[in-house]
Amino acid sequence: MPAKMPQIARRGLLLVLSSPSGAGKTTLSRALLAGDPGIELSVSVTTRKPRPGEVDGKDYFFVDEKKFQRMVEKGELLEWARVFQHCYGTPRGAVEKALAEGRDVLFDIDWQGAQQLAEKMAGDLVRVFILPPSGKVLESRLETRAQDPPEVVAKRMAAAAAEISHWAEYEYVIVNADLLSSIAGLKSILAAERLKRDRLLGLSAFVRSITRSL
Amino acid sequence: MPAKMPQIARRGLLLVLSSPSGAGKTTLSRALLAGDPGIELSVSVTTRKPRPGEVDGKDYFFVDEKKFQRMVEKGELLEWARVFQHCYGTPRGAVEKALAEGRDVLFDIDWQGAQQLAEKMAGDLVRVFILPPSGKVLESRLETRAQDPPEVVAKRMAAAAAEISHWAEYEYVIVNADLLSSIAGLKSILAAERLKRDRLLGLSAFVRSITRSL
Repeated sequence: MPAKMPQIARRGLLLVLSSPSGAGKTTLSRALLAGDPGIELSVSVTTRKPRPGEVDGKDYFFVDEKKFQRMVEKGELLEWARVFQHCYGTPRGAVEKALAEGRDVLFDIDWQGAQQLAEKMAGDLVRVFILPPSGKVLESRLETRAQDPPEVVAKRMAAAAAEISHWAEYEYVIVNADLLSSIAGLKSILAAERLKRDRLLGLSAFVRSITRSL
Repeated sequence: MPAKMPQIARRGLLLVLSSPSGAGKTTLSRALLAGDPGIELSVSVTTRKPRPGEVDGKDYFFVDEKKFQRMVEKGELLEWARVFQHCYGTPRGAVEKALAEGRDVLFDIDWQGAQQLAEKMAGDLVRVFILPPSGKVLESRLETRAQDPPEVVAKRMAAAAAEISHWAEYEYVIVNADLLSSIAGLKSILAAERLKRDRLLGLSAFVRSITRSL
């Protein structure tokens, strides 16, 4: 006789992935998103112009500088940053809605974004830092990617070193030596965090219903 | 070119499973132990006599009352309890050794044992509470198991209700409606907890080795 499945609702969670570029974060993010309909990538607000093929509300929310500043002032952004001449941020509304509906949101952001998120959404945050398996691997990836003059590569490496220096601000650390193991680890983190008591809703009532007749 | 696998050592963890009897905890424990050589069942000390086939040091450490009391007085037990006329406890030495060697230990104990463990080993503890999918399922399992007079069944149900009342002292909650899903959830919890930054050893040195050349 199959048991009637209990309907335990759950608050969503915010999964933050940070790493230096060249550690495999983008590949890991894509693999996680492709294999799990319960988690979606956070859509950022940006002041940069859409590139061909980019869709407003899907790739980014495209806004002008004035609108972006208003969002900052009104506290509508959970985190934001200026990167070169453009601004990028995470709209609070969409994130709060996802959490309330039990959907999880993936953030591919740097340590500064993660720190800002932590200030506002601490209890909902699950932070994972991805490390490369060695300095050699990281260097070769950074050099391969940049068909750039040496000083640009050097700047990129300095940025990577700065990002890595914040690894200890994350609850989980994955050393990405083997892609399949890393994906499995990331999936386990998501699955486990979904079973955290704090995220389950209505458990008190459920337990009362179980023990009423005992 | 395969990356050289980094050797990140890890401190073991203590996985505590609690539940009322009849919620499927024993089946879940066995499935977890059978599928993962990295976790082993805690071997208890007891004052009860060995049953035919039981091996000292494997099923239990068998000791007499006097020896047990000495272990309690010397603080050699992480938790202990008297159940009817016999004493049961968890020896500290074996657990500390496993943790230091990066092996995980599974505890199938009740809320009182879990509370005692938490006082002494808080940072190493991962607590999971298993709930039955409904009161009906729990009742029918308790009645099936007990070919006993009604008053004994009633006592068993009261004990189940008392155990369930402590669900909120556990970090994770699994509603065991479907055995395979519950096993998968339990495995994910173990896999994720093994990636917790706090349990990884030597990460600072590893990160320094990565960034030295950047």
